[in-house]
Amino acid sequence: MPAKYFPELCIENNSKIVLMVLDGLGGMGGIPGEPGGPTELMAAKTPHLDNLAGISSLGSTLPVARGITPGSGPAHLALFGYDPLQYLFGRGALSVAGLGMEQLRTDLAARINFATIDNEGRITDRRAGRIPTETCKALCGKLEAQISIPNVEVRVLPEKEHRAAVIFRTDPPLSDAMADTDPQDVGVPAKPPMAIKEEGRRTENVVRAFVDQAFEILADETPANALLLRGFSGRPDLPDFGQAYRLRPAAIAVYPMYKGLAHLLGMELIEVKGAEPGDEIDALLEKFDAYNFFFVHIKGTDSRGEDGDFDGKVSVLEQVDVQIPRILEKRPECFVVAGDHSTPSSMKSHSWHPVPFLLHSRYCRTEGRIGFSEDACKTGHLGQFPAVEVMQLALAHAGRLEKFGA
Amino acid sequence: MPAKYFPELCIENNSKIVLMVLDGLGGMGGIPGEPGGPTELMAAKTPHLDNLAGISSLGSTLPVARGITPGSGPAHLALFGYDPLQYLFGRGALSVAGLGMEQLRTDLAARINFATIDNEGRITDRRAGRIPTETCKALCGKLEAQISIPNVEVRVLPEKEHRAAVIFRTDPPLSDAMADTDPQDVGVPAKPPMAIKEEGRRTENVVRAFVDQAFEILADETPANALLLRGFSGRPDLPDFGQAYRLRPAAIAVYPMYKGLAHLLGMELIEVKGAEPGDEIDALLEKFDAYNFFFVHIKGTDSRGEDGDFDGKVSVLEQVDVQIPRILEKRPECFVVAGDHSTPSSMKSHSWHPVPFLLHSRYCRTEGRIGFSEDACKTGHLGQFPAVEVMQLALAHAGRLEKFGA
Repeated sequence: MPAKYFPELCIENNSKIVLMVLDGLGGMGGIPGEPGGPTELMAAKTPHLDNLAGISSLGSTLPVARGITPGSGPAHLALFGYDPLQYLFGRGALSVAGLGMEQLRTDLAARINFATIDNEGRITDRRAGRIPTETCKALCGKLEAQISIPNVEVRVLPEKEHRAAVIFRTDPPLSDAMADTDPQDVGVPAKPPMAIKEEGRRTENVVRAFVDQAFEILADETPANALLLRGFSGRPDLPDFGQAYRLRPAAIAVYPMYKGLAHLLGMELIEVKGAEPGDEIDALLEKFDAYNFFFVHIKGTDSRGEDGDFDGKVSVLEQVDVQIPRILEKRPECFVVAGDHSTPSSMKSHSWHPVPFLLHSRYCRTEGRIGFSEDACKTGHLGQFPAVEVMQLALAHAGRLEKFGA
Repeated sequence: MPAKYFPELCIENNSKIVLMVLDGLGGMGGIPGEPGGPTELMAAKTPHLDNLAGISSLGSTLPVARGITPGSGPAHLALFGYDPLQYLFGRGALSVAGLGMEQLRTDLAARINFATIDNEGRITDRRAGRIPTETCKALCGKLEAQISIPNVEVRVLPEKEHRAAVIFRTDPPLSDAMADTDPQDVGVPAKPPMAIKEEGRRTENVVRAFVDQAFEILADETPANALLLRGFSGRPDLPDFGQAYRLRPAAIAVYPMYKGLAHLLGMELIEVKGAEPGDEIDALLEKFDAYNFFFVHIKGTDSRGEDGDFDGKVSVLEQVDVQIPRILEKRPECFVVAGDHSTPSSMKSHSWHPVPFLLHSRYCRTEGRIGFSEDACKTGHLGQFPAVEVMQLALAHAGRLEKFGA
């Protein structure tokens, strides 16, 4: 939950905050082993962001802790002011929420990867060649129809390609004290379902029954002849974002997981027609009067970074840049451009590096002509700070926090 | 209390620390809506501070937490090394201490504002036109003489203009779990006395009796026909500053609240003849041999900031600047120029912005020719850090801290 002294300091008024998260925004420059050279943000032609930086405050955020590479879940929780070390929950819950499903108190959720194994049970592909979503749907239907576990209702929910989720519904609910069966590696077999605490023993039996039946049902499929489970999680118990900050929050996102997280926090989801940054900004402008907090999530920066596609990430940044004037025309009282974590394309993965941060408001100390980049951000007025403090800054600059003490 | 690992590391020796607090030191630059341009500190001609910065370490402090605008009480506590989130107490206790009154274990204190209400009880002026202090004294005397509450001794203490304090003395003492009656707004009536916890129920009755009688007694007064209460507080329990750090501390301040806080911390108050920065430095130099820690409080920077008087704040900074050589001549082992918080004159109020910080000692890393300003401080050797760590730095640079561990 947001810092303890917060709820009572928050003021309800008409000022608006736009928090635009460029997923995986930060870069590293150069290639591993040959550091140096521009990052994607330095290479990108972003005249609007550069100009905006001059009349904004810059800084850089530490997503979870110095040196720690975060997953998208904890990294976003931090941006929303929820201590990611306190609010831990598995990928399963995020998947279910991302599908727009309500996870009940009686539901244990886990994320499924359809996978390929060889004759000896060793994993050869953790994603089953990224099977088409239609195949995923068919397999999920088959599993849900045929699997039978006494006193447990089993739901198998297709996501995209090889991704799915499972819900085990029973009362009292099962425990999330379960290890992943996904070994995160190939050439080895899936791990057997294992409780990691005494309280998970009953769950272990249920999950073993599920996995045994599933492997039998999938045995003749090609290439998805196996499945891997990870992120067991009960229903997350997250304080309502809008109530905590006294905001009317809306989320604009294309990817299911981010929609799911926003939904778990009680944000309303705004429909986006299309998947480009411009489509998301269309949605923002259209609903601008109906809310006073907007989480705008841009996925492409992270996706291209994970692909190792430097030019692709540069291009997404440039696509975002051309949208900036449209947002500024609406004159939100506080406009933040942040990232949840860094995804240097040279590393093809999330990383622990601090993340560039820009905050524009009528109340900010300004940086002058230094542009928007990792280098500019490292000497910015906001310093280097924990991402979990972003909301404090945003609320302050939007005139939404009272004074603390006399 | 000062950081836990402190008391045992503190060394008693002859080195001296001068902590000069320019209240509300930090600025914002430009005007809200048109950020940019110089802050007061940048605009002021401060050749002595600028030269000193070159042979000092700079940084910026976060008074209470990022984005949080502090009152003067918590902001000063932090500078003295007391966690302002742990040591919470109301304005009432500060007012009483500022009057040089000892608050007993049996005393509940609250701050009074004399105010003006219309025929329907709605507040038209929260400060009753800033009545003369003599009127305030007369009203306090009248209230103290006429108000009668069984088993409770009531003291009504005049401060300056519309400000006063009340003490409710009874054993066992009353609870501070009371909401303010001051709605901090005009056009609405005063709030009725309300306990915010079950334990405050007895107090609520006492305070209601006080308020009812007071409103009757004041009914025919002009313009002070009402009063507002805020900051209910029992006797604050603050560890002694001098004992914690093994220092002989003295305070040089003109305003009652800061004297009050220093007194609560066990600092000795040095008399100041006059109210100008130069008068305070006179007092410092005169008593320089008698103590080894000096808290020198300059109020004008904050007052002019609150007035929205950019030039006035610049002028106070320039008045302080000419005093710097006099202080340096005494060669204190550690000389700190800090602020408790920012008060940008463009905002006419306290703010959350980081506060410029300068530390001069024979042991500091030096900055070179960058002057003393918000911009210079943002890239200083000391970084951006919580104000509650200022005393650690000051003691270290004065050679007053032992090594931690072997």
